[in-house]
Amino acid sequence: MGKPIAVIVGVGSGLSASLARRLSDEGYVLVLAARDTDKLSALADETGASIVAMEATDPSAMAALFDGLETAPDVAIYNPSARVRGPIAEVDADEVRRALEVTAYGAFLMGQAAARRMLETKADVRGTILFTGASAGVKGFAQSASFAMGKFAQRGLAQSMARELHPKGIHVAWINIDGMIRNPGRVEPADRPDSMLDPDAIAGAYLNLIRQDRSAWTDEITLRPWVESF
Amino acid sequence: MGKPIAVIVGVGSGLSASLARRLSDEGYVLVLAARDTDKLSALADETGASIVAMEATDPSAMAALFDGLETAPDVAIYNPSARVRGPIAEVDADEVRRALEVTAYGAFLMGQAAARRMLETKADVRGTILFTGASAGVKGFAQSASFAMGKFAQRGLAQSMARELHPKGIHVAWINIDGMIRNPGRVEPADRPDSMLDPDAIAGAYLNLIRQDRSAWTDEITLRPWVESF
Amino acid sequence: MGKPIAVIVGVGSGLSASLARRLSDEGYVLVLAARDTDKLSALADETGASIVAMEATDPSAMAALFDGLETAPDVAIYNPSARVRGPIAEVDADEVRRALEVTAYGAFLMGQAAARRMLETKADVRGTILFTGASAGVKGFAQSASFAMGKFAQRGLAQSMARELHPKGIHVAWINIDGMIRNPGRVEPADRPDSMLDPDAIAGAYLNLIRQDRSAWTDEITLRPWVESF
Amino acid sequence: MGKPIAVIVGVGSGLSASLARRLSDEGYVLVLAARDTDKLSALADETGASIVAMEATDPSAMAALFDGLETAPDVAIYNPSARVRGPIAEVDADEVRRALEVTAYGAFLMGQAAARRMLETKADVRGTILFTGASAGVKGFAQSASFAMGKFAQRGLAQSMARELHPKGIHVAWINIDGMIRNPGRVEPADRPDSMLDPDAIAGAYLNLIRQDRSAWTDEITLRPWVESF
Repeated sequence: MGKPIAVIVGVGSGLSASLARRLSDEGYVLVLAARDTDKLSALADETGASIVAMEATDPSAMAALFDGLETAPDVAIYNPSARVRGPIAEVDADEVRRALEVTAYGAFLMGQAAARRMLETKADVRGTILFTGASAGVKGFAQSASFAMGKFAQRGLAQSMARELHPKGIHVAWINIDGMIRNPGRVEPADRPDSMLDPDAIAGAYLNLIRQDRSAWTDEITLRPWVESF
Repeated sequence: MGKPIAVIVGVGSGLSASLARRLSDEGYVLVLAARDTDKLSALADETGASIVAMEATDPSAMAALFDGLETAPDVAIYNPSARVRGPIAEVDADEVRRALEVTAYGAFLMGQAAARRMLETKADVRGTILFTGASAGVKGFAQSASFAMGKFAQRGLAQSMARELHPKGIHVAWINIDGMIRNPGRVEPADRPDSMLDPDAIAGAYLNLIRQDRSAWTDEITLRPWVESF
Repeated sequence: MGKPIAVIVGVGSGLSASLARRLSDEGYVLVLAARDTDKLSALADETGASIVAMEATDPSAMAALFDGLETAPDVAIYNPSARVRGPIAEVDADEVRRALEVTAYGAFLMGQAAARRMLETKADVRGTILFTGASAGVKGFAQSASFAMGKFAQRGLAQSMARELHPKGIHVAWINIDGMIRNPGRVEPADRPDSMLDPDAIAGAYLNLIRQDRSAWTDEITLRPWVESF
Repeated sequence: MGKPIAVIVGVGSGLSASLARRLSDEGYVLVLAARDTDKLSALADETGASIVAMEATDPSAMAALFDGLETAPDVAIYNPSARVRGPIAEVDADEVRRALEVTAYGAFLMGQAAARRMLETKADVRGTILFTGASAGVKGFAQSASFAMGKFAQRGLAQSMARELHPKGIHVAWINIDGMIRNPGRVEPADRPDSMLDPDAIAGAYLNLIRQDRSAWTDEITLRPWVESF
């Protein structure tokens, strides 16, 4: 029996890199898909991941990504999101449509492609599909209609998929990352330690979801810094 | 001072016709926009409404609809929605994108165009923007990912707009129609009277929202038949 | 056939007085129950209401209040609430229990007593039971555990009752009053007109709920000033 | 530096026993409080736990339980709940009050007592307070008003405490156990394996919460069997 496969769609230097490292440590064969793969060679070397350059909102590309896997993936994670900030009367309508496609339609495409492959294994269907969300999926903030639409849609997608796929053996969850994720470019205020989410801590929470016993699955979870107001 | 103006996007024979009649009775000048306007002439005659044939997901058409009004609208209502039913692994990806655009992106376009005109009246901004939702915006049902995405997105849009626009004087609300709407083509079971929503009752609820005092606005409301399980 | 009967539990000079006046105008025979009835004689004269001095958390008193009605009530409204502010580690435990009883247990007692009488009329059960809630029933605020507990409990009660009683013909709703109610003792900031809820506007919303067609009932509604942040 | 202390209030043969074993394995010194301690000697022997017989709704007993600890507890878990099933018009009002006290007021007492001790350690406040909830805290079911009230209240309590205590270093979470917990007395249907929650799996989820990095805390989580409808 081969190693388990994890596909991560939307990979950069932050959360997705922590996810890749953690899953690699846990023995997963990794496939990382990103629009811009220029800076991923170091991560690929470190984790042995295959790198695929693709557009998450392209149905054919997404289908090809999953159809190209030797066996059904065990884990599929969707990270991309986009937003347009500004007064509702002033934001560019094309950018809003594009943001909705990146955050929600691409999530659907990955969810569909991953579920298709997982369901192929008719004798023993299993797998975990995770969507990286945000508090904008629970509360629509002012001057951020596109992000509210995208993240709400993503949460609705995850709920619909969970209700359909849980009884088939596929675990689906939406993770509300409620705060800023720590990264080298963001300086955490000195008087507020741990006020930004540690990407390794998030990766640990994703791994806990992946490992959950099917008698006790979680479909939505919020991760929030201790000092974040909510 | 002229009569108040109401724009309804998405007009057929059901809820939208009741809304048109009720708003006409209340003295509104009506503009009804629909993709297919063939069957709207009787309603136009009855209510004195202007009829506009347009595609709700077309940014230029939506902008033109609102820019063409003599003065800022007092009321704007968005009704269109679309869905694709079926297992997540089998639904057609293009139809899902299209459904998301009709339900959510078109709602954004109307919300934006309506808000723009309402905000023009700088001295005394006011107006009501209503989105016709469904329980799919609160709970994502199995085999209905596209509807969950669209209605969740619409609810997120309404929340974002309410948080931005309420303090500017524009009332925004999302109405969860949780049940089937009565119409001539749907026979209500004899032993379950009033088990489908009376479109005139819904129109009354919309009018109550439009009339709310700004010291006591509602941003989300559910309308559900007494015998509907929830 | 006699006039309809409305019972209001928890009556002072604010919202409940507006409710009493409005229901009286609409032709209801009123029974007003309060702990302290000293200041209610003017309201009684104005509305023709019967006044009952009672403790809302006393099961016998509540049962007697409803058993004493000549016929089943058409409307029953519960207003009382209590809270203890302060750090969780410091609030007085007895006061917290008392607050929970006033806000939630009394609401149960009224809901039970009202439902009992309404269900007696076996041939034609109908009626409306309304609970005056607050945003604390949707979001638990810091240093306000007793209010969070009471208002959450009240909302859970209303949901449970709605699911049981709607199909029997009794309409149950929980109203989230999200803001301060205007009253003579509270001066509204001059630069924020209508930033406090007009009690007459709230009473109008209650009346709209009472009048809803049973094909389109609402079980939860929020009323919030236009400038209130949420 | 001594071993960490965990207090579990409400201990029987099910979830609480799994929690005790798991925490004991992880090196915690255990204090188990229960109304009826007759059957706890084997668990005490196995885990080295101290057993305290007490009534969770008694303020003095709860205060004494926590005041008696040598140092501040690291973990406090509240399990008790009670309910009265039946039509709202028929349930016994005294039993409803008692159920509300067991489920919600006792939870408050434990939360208060645990927070007090944790906050004493002024230099380095930390700790985790967990409440065992149910889906009745999210949705009020028919003929179950007392359980809806109790679990909703408990969730409001947890939210209020999380908003107050997270920024002080104390992690508070409410766990929605959405399904039946497997135990020797409940036979799982043969064709629905893992349709009841494995108490060891739940205990694992509690431990994950206890171990969360403070940059990524969870305040509410649902655990649900894969085949449970929701």
